Amino acid sequence: MKKFNTSPISGMQELLPAMQYEFNRLKSGILQIYTAHGFQNIETPTIDRTEVLLAKAGGDTEKQIYKVIKTAETSSEADQALRFDHTVPLARYVVEHANDLVFPFKVSQIGRNFRGERAQKGRFREFYQCDVDVIGWQSLPVTYDAEVIVTLIKALRFLPLPEFIVRLSNRKLLSGLLEALNLEHQAAAIFEIVDHAEKVPHEITEKALMELGIGTENVVKITTFIQIKGDPLVVVSKLKDLSYDNATFVEGVAELEEVASTVQALMPEAKVQADMLIVRGLDYYTGTVFETIVPQHPEIGSICSGGRYENLAGYYTEQKLPGVGGSIGLTRLFYVLQSAGYISKNELKPVEICVIPVSHNEIKAAGEIAEKLRTEGKTVDIVLTERKLGDKFKYAARVARYVIVVGENEVETHSYKLRDLETGEETNEAW
Amino acid sequence: MKKFNTSPISGMQELLPAMQYEFNRLKSGILQIYTAHGFQNIETPTIDRTEVLLAKAGGDTEKQIYKVIKTAETSSEADQALRFDHTVPLARYVVEHANDLVFPFKVSQIGRNFRGERAQKGRFREFYQCDVDVIGWQSLPVTYDAEVIVTLIKALRFLPLPEFIVRLSNRKLLSGLLEALNLEHQAAAIFEIVDHAEKVPHEITEKALMELGIGTENVVKITTFIQIKGDPLVVVSKLKDLSYDNATFVEGVAELEEVASTVQALMPEAKVQADMLIVRGLDYYTGTVFETIVPQHPEIGSICSGGRYENLAGYYTEQKLPGVGGSIGLTRLFYVLQSAGYISKNELKPVEICVIPVSHNEIKAAGEIAEKLRTEGKTVDIVLTERKLGDKFKYAARVARYVIVVGENEVETHSYKLRDLETGEETNEAW
Repeated sequence: MKKFNTSPISGMQELLPAMQYEFNRLKSGILQIYTAHGFQNIETPTIDRTEVLLAKAGGDTEKQIYKVIKTAETSSEADQALRFDHTVPLARYVVEHANDLVFPFKVSQIGRNFRGERAQKGRFREFYQCDVDVIGWQSLPVTYDAEVIVTLIKALRFLPLPEFIVRLSNRKLLSGLLEALNLEHQAAAIFEIVDHAEKVPHEITEKALMELGIGTENVVKITTFIQIKGDPLVVVSKLKDLSYDNATFVEGVAELEEVASTVQALMPEAKVQADMLIVRGLDYYTGTVFETIVPQHPEIGSICSGGRYENLAGYYTEQKLPGVGGSIGLTRLFYVLQSAGYISKNELKPVEICVIPVSHNEIKAAGEIAEKLRTEGKTVDIVLTERKLGDKFKYAARVARYVIVVGENEVETHSYKLRDLETGEETNEAW
Repeated sequence: MKKFNTSPISGMQELLPAMQYEFNRLKSGILQIYTAHGFQNIETPTIDRTEVLLAKAGGDTEKQIYKVIKTAETSSEADQALRFDHTVPLARYVVEHANDLVFPFKVSQIGRNFRGERAQKGRFREFYQCDVDVIGWQSLPVTYDAEVIVTLIKALRFLPLPEFIVRLSNRKLLSGLLEALNLEHQAAAIFEIVDHAEKVPHEITEKALMELGIGTENVVKITTFIQIKGDPLVVVSKLKDLSYDNATFVEGVAELEEVASTVQALMPEAKVQADMLIVRGLDYYTGTVFETIVPQHPEIGSICSGGRYENLAGYYTEQKLPGVGGSIGLTRLFYVLQSAGYISKNELKPVEICVIPVSHNEIKAAGEIAEKLRTEGKTVDIVLTERKLGDKFKYAARVARYVIVVGENEVETHSYKLRDLETGEETNEAW
């Protein structure tokens, strides 16, 4: 029947209506939770100047960016591209509108971002991210790191997920340790090895560290450190026991303690584990870092992550704007939840009630009944096809759980029967 | 302070949080109304293959399309571009997923579309459109044209708009008239003149028609016809009085009558005017056409328009898929409503209630109070800055209407005062 390839481009999510309904429900629920926690929603344009988007980025990001070109381009137009995350446009937004914002600026962003990655199963080139960030003016207490984590946990709990655990750390700990060991010059390489440590056997990590030529003693100190994990306050006391008096390390311990105890205060039931393996790949982060895993499904990887950045918009302004943020990658998460069977496979019906006027003469009455039911919050479809009653019923059974047939008798008596198509039960109602 | 141009690209909407809140509220309200009427929401990818997007289009559309290019492009990738409306991706979607859809397929789409138009005030290059469509399988009764119009009226009523009027016609009327006058060969030119008739003095229209060399008598017949307007059923009887027995014309009259009477039946209070000047520029439409004007603000132009198309997806499939649809251009409408003062200028507060813990010791209690209030549906912010109480209050006054201070006493008594910052009133509450 097709004359044309009508599939969407690979790497693009395209859902059937019942799944789209579920996706929209989760997306709205997340926004509602963010809003209930005092995060103000904003939306930045999908298209921005390439120089803005790439001010800080480079490497992979630059390779994955989608540039846009108007067919009838004029040379005066700046280079433009699709945003690849929410953080970069947020930096531009905050600097542009600083005078109109209240700081700390608690902000949420839910929208589509774009990365021209190689297409592969479960990877999306267009994807929804649901971000919260708090931006301070000159300073921002680390208690807000806890507020971001708590808000994200609340949002994740709304999703149809099995138990999940937030893994928490602070980049100042490893940085401080390396300063204490006089290994700052190797910091970049060591952070990268630690970031990959979880994906390889322990010996590989040890070998990689040894190859840096930093000496067995230092390798032992680092590998001992990165194996520390557990209840955050127990971890804090273990870290204190290490007795590194280096300022950065001490600050890292204090921040970890404050973030963990504030999360505990705000949400005693939160499952948070301190884990020194978490460093997050990006240099972007400067303090608190976190990831979120689902122990029953390690294959999913982190479903929500984020951290503290000391300067949101250093490329755009001389004003220091420290921030903390985190993000739920909803498109990918929805895909893995669907694959793992957590998204309800119920045939969601498009509407609750379908009203069938027997003939054109009953359209007016059908409209009145539908309006009455919509006022009560119901979703209602009216069958307007000119088919036999049996065919109208077939349609109704596919789109709705309840059906109302409106014929001459119903118009005369101003009453109707609401029929439950699942149980066969009927109730009489007036309008 | 800025080191960089941080304004958004011209032609892109970027709102402050209070306005974004209002925009989101209107957008969600429209979706809710569409859903209550049985339209299923779907979302197609922002990026599609250029050959899909331009299968039917050409001319201006082609000039305005945004092409996208991955920086690291491989030659195997097809040409890609940003969608410029919802109808073209919908055609692809319906053909691709036909086996999984129920027909007539009542569908809504709310999302951003892109056109690289020349930037000018009130014109957007990225804009939200809120569409409803009904797609039939092989056939679709014109009663659905009425359902689309009624649903759009319901949505428009939710917006902060003054009185508006739907102007309704049917392209078969002018087509049929031209057939009756043996002027089919001039139809394209005449439709174009009629489409522009409203923007120019009557004499210009007459002159343009005369210049086609179709004779004075025919020009009089056409100009008489296009001046017919008024109550739809009165117009129908005027059209019948013209006594053109041409099949297309007769069909147009019958369809106009059925659409108008169904709108009347479904929504007796709807303000609909039949107006033969309405032909809509696009060849795309084949029957019913409509526009919506705000008499108090003629400068706004049409705020919602649409019509019937005999074949949605003729370029992609041999299956005939007749449809009817309409769209509210929300970004532009929001802009004009804002300019005309219809969008509330109240300083919308980010949250309802702000909870201030006096010190770190009260964060736990503040969290409990906030959670209790959120469970009651309130939006609540907790002040986590380490400032003096006066500074915390200043922040609270900027973000919330109500404030709760939590100190030692409140923790001890498990009670707090909810203070209304506008009236100064205080109420005692427990948690």
